[in-house]
Amino acid sequence: MSKQRLEAFTDGVYAIVITLLILDIRIPNVQPQDLGPALVKMLPQVFTYVLSFFVVAVYWFSHHRVAQQVKLLDGTFIWLNMIWLLFVSVMPFPTALLGRYPLQPIPTAIYGIDLMLANITGFVILAYMRNHPELCHSAIDAATFRRQLPTYAITNGTYLAAVVLGWYLPWVSYALYAAVLAGLMVRFARIPNPFQAG
Amino acid sequence: MSKQRLEAFTDGVYAIVITLLILDIRIPNVQPQDLGPALVKMLPQVFTYVLSFFVVAVYWFSHHRVAQQVKLLDGTFIWLNMIWLLFVSVMPFPTALLGRYPLQPIPTAIYGIDLMLANITGFVILAYMRNHPELCHSAIDAATFRRQLPTYAITNGTYLAAVVLGWYLPWVSYALYAAVLAGLMVRFARIPNPFQAG
Amino acid sequence: MSKQRLEAFTDGVYAIVITLLILDIRIPNVQPQDLGPALVKMLPQVFTYVLSFFVVAVYWFSHHRVAQQVKLLDGTFIWLNMIWLLFVSVMPFPTALLGRYPLQPIPTAIYGIDLMLANITGFVILAYMRNHPELCHSAIDAATFRRQLPTYAITNGTYLAAVVLGWYLPWVSYALYAAVLAGLMVRFARIPNPFQAG
Amino acid sequence: MSKQRLEAFTDGVYAIVITLLILDIRIPNVQPQDLGPALVKMLPQVFTYVLSFFVVAVYWFSHHRVAQQVKLLDGTFIWLNMIWLLFVSVMPFPTALLGRYPLQPIPTAIYGIDLMLANITGFVILAYMRNHPELCHSAIDAATFRRQLPTYAITNGTYLAAVVLGWYLPWVSYALYAAVLAGLMVRFARIPNPFQAG
Repeated sequence: MSKQRLEAFTDGVYAIVITLLILDIRIPNVQPQDLGPALVKMLPQVFTYVLSFFVVAVYWFSHHRVAQQVKLLDGTFIWLNMIWLLFVSVMPFPTALLGRYPLQPIPTAIYGIDLMLANITGFVILAYMRNHPELCHSAIDAATFRRQLPTYAITNGTYLAAVVLGWYLPWVSYALYAAVLAGLMVRFARIPNPFQAG
Repeated sequence: MSKQRLEAFTDGVYAIVITLLILDIRIPNVQPQDLGPALVKMLPQVFTYVLSFFVVAVYWFSHHRVAQQVKLLDGTFIWLNMIWLLFVSVMPFPTALLGRYPLQPIPTAIYGIDLMLANITGFVILAYMRNHPELCHSAIDAATFRRQLPTYAITNGTYLAAVVLGWYLPWVSYALYAAVLAGLMVRFARIPNPFQAG
Repeated sequence: MSKQRLEAFTDGVYAIVITLLILDIRIPNVQPQDLGPALVKMLPQVFTYVLSFFVVAVYWFSHHRVAQQVKLLDGTFIWLNMIWLLFVSVMPFPTALLGRYPLQPIPTAIYGIDLMLANITGFVILAYMRNHPELCHSAIDAATFRRQLPTYAITNGTYLAAVVLGWYLPWVSYALYAAVLAGLMVRFARIPNPFQAG
Repeated sequence: MSKQRLEAFTDGVYAIVITLLILDIRIPNVQPQDLGPALVKMLPQVFTYVLSFFVVAVYWFSHHRVAQQVKLLDGTFIWLNMIWLLFVSVMPFPTALLGRYPLQPIPTAIYGIDLMLANITGFVILAYMRNHPELCHSAIDAATFRRQLPTYAITNGTYLAAVVLGWYLPWVSYALYAAVLAGLMVRFARIPNPFQAG
């Protein structure tokens, strides 16, 4: 039951974040005849909006897969979960920043840093569960844990590369963010029954 | 259980979208004695607000009817569902745009295109379920599937007509959007026990 | 189960509306030394905020009491419920309007008209249930139905008086809105076990 | 069941408040080359954002622990709960105010006063449950009740000190808010199974 309330709270936060993203796409304030070009100029914002929408969706998916392995909650787990939610809740800010200042190094870096922080927190939670088998339905054995490592390493490594490259080749950073997202989406889509089997 | 969390997430997104719509109706900033005319000028915004409110409600209703036939989830289904939610979450933008630029062709078209994209995604999900009977409580047989086709075809055909007519007869586009909505609402209202029988 | 999803959706809308109300209380943009007077000038907004917060809470409470008597849903009931949610979702607009233009007749009237529309929809739902005992756990008999009538009549009558008096004695309108709210809150608080017995 | 709906509503409000906080961190509107300094100037806002995020999380945690002891709801309990939610829902306002006017006495005081009001309401709810054992799974005995008193007293005493010191040593007020938060987080984290045993 208690787990249900944490899940409901967590799902609520994800659902709100993913829906709030649209609020930062403000309608242009121009003469009707200038609306077409004004909307075209918004395309970078649309790109970052769609990117962030699916990034949040991927985090929700991944959060769900972690949560279903949890049986009991302790205080530390709940705070780790809150820190994870913090980095997810923050998403509308880097999204709006990158949409407003497209291809600029600082927004590109801030966007990637938030993704990394969220991702690292997810990893810390997994490590915490690994060390606290009493909280899990079935203990996360060394092999399962090790199998997850490459995904975390590749994801964060690519994010780091995107953050650095934002100063020289911002288009490449964009491509890297999109590539990691696509990779994770394909990976999740291939799991035959993602919410049943771990 | 997993299905419950996807439903909770989906319901959350719909509830948030339908409630956020009001945030784009900004109060006028005028002298008190000019408030009356300023509010009258907002009537087109009120019209698009009410239209979108019930459009989102219809999508929620229709989403629910699809979801209740689903037994298991696979990764593809979850992403299709996310794409559906994307086109629903976007709604506050075309709604605000059409409210700010009433009877203009581009906002009229963008509004209709979003409706079509959401509707087509709903259809793709139905087709996916048709081809994956193992995900459904009871397989969607050819007859049931075929019975749904006219609704999708008429709805999208009318939306397409509204998008095109927005350049010449924007009032007709408005009437078409309202007519489709009214038609779907009446259709759903007539189902005697909509959340029990498929 | 279907009823649960409508309830979850409805609770979601109420929770979002009640929380969004704060977004319309914008922080003042002045020099730090002028902050005190600027905040004092915001008191009418705080009044309407608190008023609306508890008005939404009362509607949620009352909605819950209606919903627990419902066993089955038909299409009409769902649309009536959506119309009810429409008038609740709209609340941030009249609240912000009355906060921005305190003691002005038009905002006072719009505020009261929205309250009346929501209240009348609640009554229509009750009447619909009265005529469709097959949807209810136990049929709403004539005596129970008649017992509710005075509350609806007094509430709407007072709202109407407040709407009219807004042109002459806006303070009285404020007092009437607050009085109806206080009356309903006391009435609900006195029910010993409000969510068990009808 | 009714308790579940109040919990769902309450969780919804908390999830929305904690997520809405980010909306008040507006992206700067400057030339791209001035973005770095503009973002650095936002650091006080980031501090109050993170502070409020975890304050709301602590209230949610604490709310949950109270709610799990409740078996039945009466009208008074529901209104007390609503008053608690009012002071939580308000949080985005003092947060934005303190972020916009950092180290100023009035925003520092308003922030602390809201925290105190929420905390006192939580205490009133506990006292109400103490006097109404028929609403609780197991009556809150005198010893358990007394054990909670120091936490409430220390918390509110520190908040009061922070409110007063805001006029002379605003940095100390900030440190006190952070210290109370850290203290509560550590205290909750140490509970071995916080959502099972009272």
